[in-house]
Amino acid sequence: MGKQANMARAFKAVDGDFEARVRDSFARQTAMRLIGARMGRLEAGYCEIELPFRDDLAQQHGLFHGGFTSAIADTACGYAAYSLFGAQDSVLSVEYKINFVSPAAGDRLLAVAGVKKSGRTLTVCEFEVMAAKGEEQLLCACGLATLIRLADRPDRPQAD
Amino acid sequence: MGKQANMARAFKAVDGDFEARVRDSFARQTAMRLIGARMGRLEAGYCEIELPFRDDLAQQHGLFHGGFTSAIADTACGYAAYSLFGAQDSVLSVEYKINFVSPAAGDRLLAVAGVKKSGRTLTVCEFEVMAAKGEEQLLCACGLATLIRLADRPDRPQAD
Amino acid sequence: MGKQANMARAFKAVDGDFEARVRDSFARQTAMRLIGARMGRLEAGYCEIELPFRDDLAQQHGLFHGGFTSAIADTACGYAAYSLFGAQDSVLSVEYKINFVSPAAGDRLLAVAGVKKSGRTLTVCEFEVMAAKGEEQLLCACGLATLIRLADRPDRPQAD
Amino acid sequence: MGKQANMARAFKAVDGDFEARVRDSFARQTAMRLIGARMGRLEAGYCEIELPFRDDLAQQHGLFHGGFTSAIADTACGYAAYSLFGAQDSVLSVEYKINFVSPAAGDRLLAVAGVKKSGRTLTVCEFEVMAAKGEEQLLCACGLATLIRLADRPDRPQAD
Repeated sequence: MGKQANMARAFKAVDGDFEARVRDSFARQTAMRLIGARMGRLEAGYCEIELPFRDDLAQQHGLFHGGFTSAIADTACGYAAYSLFGAQDSVLSVEYKINFVSPAAGDRLLAVAGVKKSGRTLTVCEFEVMAAKGEEQLLCACGLATLIRLADRPDRPQAD
Repeated sequence: MGKQANMARAFKAVDGDFEARVRDSFARQTAMRLIGARMGRLEAGYCEIELPFRDDLAQQHGLFHGGFTSAIADTACGYAAYSLFGAQDSVLSVEYKINFVSPAAGDRLLAVAGVKKSGRTLTVCEFEVMAAKGEEQLLCACGLATLIRLADRPDRPQAD
Repeated sequence: MGKQANMARAFKAVDGDFEARVRDSFARQTAMRLIGARMGRLEAGYCEIELPFRDDLAQQHGLFHGGFTSAIADTACGYAAYSLFGAQDSVLSVEYKINFVSPAAGDRLLAVAGVKKSGRTLTVCEFEVMAAKGEEQLLCACGLATLIRLADRPDRPQAD
Repeated sequence: MGKQANMARAFKAVDGDFEARVRDSFARQTAMRLIGARMGRLEAGYCEIELPFRDDLAQQHGLFHGGFTSAIADTACGYAAYSLFGAQDSVLSVEYKINFVSPAAGDRLLAVAGVKKSGRTLTVCEFEVMAAKGEEQLLCACGLATLIRLADRPDRPQAD
């Protein structure tokens, strides 16, 4: 909880319309729709993605599959970084590292990602994933991601 | 291709029935069923998982979502490690790191994972994910994973 | 600065003498002596290591060599974890990941490491390295490390 | 051994004089001189660095300090990447991840690094570190590193 507050730093977006741009991009991710992930709070340099539990999201023991823990964490990092980019840029994941620290058991996962360093080409984000059961939240994964800005390659293909 | 051959090393399984045990565990992963992933070749210390492209597996540009690239890589590592465990053990992912080196464009992804170090408690696996289009394969991601053995905690809950 | 405060969490050491034990272990690291690293603040689950600049610690451009940035970060993580262990345990690094986010230029480096998850077998630490010039501090690296507890294998060989 | 052979791939250097350029850069690393590291075999996209054991390179149990294992691995990756760059470029480490898989005990360490993907901006290298005792070699660490090319910023400051 403290971490979430802590990650939302005083970044200033260069694109005043970043929220519409980010949410539009997320909405085009059919993968996130398939698993039922939703974008939550979004600020300049900060992004939350939530994943409610469903029986078809499980690993062999009936808990959230780690691949989806990673998927929402990676996506949250991408959009935390992308929120600080210009309207004509797009973003790609270069790499990330994730530690699974507790079983992903609960009624939903909450991935929170914050920009740690925003460079001209590369952005570094940190993330945490909480497994929530009602009001309780337990840290279930954490990590770091490196993202790259593709300058002047808009995320949404232009109509011609 | 060379890598795949190279990853399949001379490990000897302690459980002669490891293949049935691994494939049974994989079959219980509803997450893999949801996305349409299939387990391919399986050997002691080596595992392949394939993911055919579908429109609902995409990121915002219509390519495979990186979360699924990770999901099949992480799963392949888990089962490569698990193949070397005893029949009464189970496996958990401790952490992994993935680099995305090329766009995940193609008609299927192929994750190949091989054990690099098999210890009493921890196992380290390396993996590669290829994006395949017909006969062509291009490396699209690679990484390393650390897995932990949970001794005497069978993967499949016992009937009582 | 905020991060440093933030990393020092409310962990309780099981060994009341952890500070003497940790500082004694650090003092036996000839590698840290060679490069001139010093252990700073130490609390249960938290450790700082400082490295003053010297001309023989440089990479090809005259800045701190990244290998030493990593060396003090890894060491700080090891002792942050070890501070929470029992008097008869020892600690080993399993793996870590480090991002270099700014040039390591300054008159000293300060590595701060805090335990993020303390498990029975594995501990996960996060770390930051600041490059300091006088009063100013700039984040130059950050990362995550996984450590393992070796129960009942004391760090210091017993006299017989 | 197989890995070493395997890492040396068919890369073609754009700068015919890469070997002199790389070895000159390495020679300017005072850090490598301090610990006694030597560059071994060097090819386009491949680099070896060796570190003979000395009593002042140890951690608390008298083995090679993991910080130096990392230092030579990171350096080998940097020069494997740099060997493929143009004469006017320089190289920086973006991040790396290392797994320590066996104790670093022996009379020398040998880090071998090979380029896995050479992009316009980013290069990904894999590495292994062997602990050698006489003729025997044991894998003691392995990992992946991401490097960035700084185009048109020569590694060696020009005389004016």
